[in-house]
Amino acid sequence: MAHEVTVLTAGELRGLVQLDLAAVDVVERAFAALASGTVVMPPILSMAIPEANGEVDVKTAYIPGFDGFAIKVSPGFFDNPKLGLPSLNGLMILFSARTGLVEALLLDNGYLTDVRTAAAGAVAARHLAPAKVETATVIGTGIQARLQIEAAHLVRPFSRVLVWGRDMAKAEACAADIAERLKITAEAVADPARAVAQSQLVVTTTPAEHPVFKAEWLHPGLHITAMGSDQAGKNEIEPAALVAADLYVCDRVSQCEALGELRSAIAAGLWQGGTPPELGEIVTGRHPGRCSDDEITICDLTGTGAQDTAIATSTIAAARKAGAGSTILT
Amino acid sequence: MAHEVTVLTAGELRGLVQLDLAAVDVVERAFAALASGTVVMPPILSMAIPEANGEVDVKTAYIPGFDGFAIKVSPGFFDNPKLGLPSLNGLMILFSARTGLVEALLLDNGYLTDVRTAAAGAVAARHLAPAKVETATVIGTGIQARLQIEAAHLVRPFSRVLVWGRDMAKAEACAADIAERLKITAEAVADPARAVAQSQLVVTTTPAEHPVFKAEWLHPGLHITAMGSDQAGKNEIEPAALVAADLYVCDRVSQCEALGELRSAIAAGLWQGGTPPELGEIVTGRHPGRCSDDEITICDLTGTGAQDTAIATSTIAAARKAGAGSTILT
Repeated sequence: MAHEVTVLTAGELRGLVQLDLAAVDVVERAFAALASGTVVMPPILSMAIPEANGEVDVKTAYIPGFDGFAIKVSPGFFDNPKLGLPSLNGLMILFSARTGLVEALLLDNGYLTDVRTAAAGAVAARHLAPAKVETATVIGTGIQARLQIEAAHLVRPFSRVLVWGRDMAKAEACAADIAERLKITAEAVADPARAVAQSQLVVTTTPAEHPVFKAEWLHPGLHITAMGSDQAGKNEIEPAALVAADLYVCDRVSQCEALGELRSAIAAGLWQGGTPPELGEIVTGRHPGRCSDDEITICDLTGTGAQDTAIATSTIAAARKAGAGSTILT
Repeated sequence: MAHEVTVLTAGELRGLVQLDLAAVDVVERAFAALASGTVVMPPILSMAIPEANGEVDVKTAYIPGFDGFAIKVSPGFFDNPKLGLPSLNGLMILFSARTGLVEALLLDNGYLTDVRTAAAGAVAARHLAPAKVETATVIGTGIQARLQIEAAHLVRPFSRVLVWGRDMAKAEACAADIAERLKITAEAVADPARAVAQSQLVVTTTPAEHPVFKAEWLHPGLHITAMGSDQAGKNEIEPAALVAADLYVCDRVSQCEALGELRSAIAAGLWQGGTPPELGEIVTGRHPGRCSDDEITICDLTGTGAQDTAIATSTIAAARKAGAGSTILT
């Protein structure tokens, strides 16, 4: 029995969905749902293709009350830049949560993942950063370095950004892009310790396998969002920092234990803090979160299928409202 | 950077791919590859949606030497028939194994899964059934009951089929379909024990949670393909039968231990046979397989991502040769 499938190309999706407060709110609702305990979110399917220096992750989640659920496929092929292609690609498929039929193909080449990942950083900053952020530092110089700063600026309109990366030229290019995009001061810096000392908000966006953020850099009134580690081999934040912070928060405990900063802290034998709270518990007020402007907070983001279901569902609603996309009968 | 994605609808796919010896050979090569030890096949991602009596499985595998890898999504929503919809649906997505870019969307509504699943039964029958099969019994009355018999008939052209199911009317309808399709004798039977006693080949195709095949039914010169169990709760073959058979073969040991008949035999404390051989080892001659026409053999099929990658890859090659499908630029 044939049914209609909506197809949206990357260009159409870029016209429909932007990194704005609406996207942040969509992702915030996904975290709130996760805190409710009713979301079904299986472990990530992950496959390595060593011959091509590639990997592919599949994420999904069912959120009760949502009409659909997304299955998101994220390939990362890290030799692609040599071929003139981006490393990250992929698509989302939206299924009816009532019948399992394919409802929509979102051929986003990773764009919606970029947006929902950055939006999660904004949710973390909104609920965990000090009320007043004047300077933000980003560690890393890739797409997410730019987008995380753009997203955080939506909820904490800081006036200055410092960018640190191993490659000074890339840090300068990243700072220039941020300055142009947000019309604020942004500069590349050579010393990340000095940058952090001047900042109230730090975002780490690297695929580092050894910490790029030292525990000794912690200072009162700092919030850190660590969004780079999403695999067992990665670690951005020195494990002692998780213990020294007043509050350490996971996007999903089961994922952070296996793939996030928490994994390294557990492996180092340092983590004795029991089960950390999840971002959704902060969002919904189940956990108090930051209690004063002097506290030090860390949020560990590994990326959840719930964010994918939320952004895919809101995207298809926007597409239907706008009459965007094409239809295939299958 | 936009790239081209080929889209094939269910109708186009039915025109391109049939359950024939070519499909059996494609799936046989997938099993041969699995035996080589170089295939990367992660555990199945599985998510239940209890509110809709639904589940969704995601399978994949990378086979070295193949240009692409498939990600196959199989939703099963078992209240769909009440809505006039089939329970099983889904699609396959073919990615470049070199760049991770989406190459093709095979919107098959589960058709390619039906074909590759039945073809695996033919591979098992080809390599494990006695050379001469006059009568085959199928237990179960659904789509796979029909397709498994059709597939097995390609490699063992038996002249008679017996069909048993809990619902005699469904068994009769299934037998009528088989008789018409294969132009052979096919009849529904009330007593599965008597049917098995007359058969050299038995295929079990049910979602049973308690055995539908008794160990006492085993007799010399019998091959059984058990393809129904693909979840931890399912069990078609009485565990004692696995021990009593001369040879028990898995499609993939790691899957059969968790999801197949082997799981029940291990749980019952009966399985002491060490690591069973895999079908690919039989196909490639690494394991001798059946040694005489009198032996009793059992093959346990849970369904592998390698089959999906193989059928998707051969399908897209056929589509390109035929100029079938449409193209989306994304």
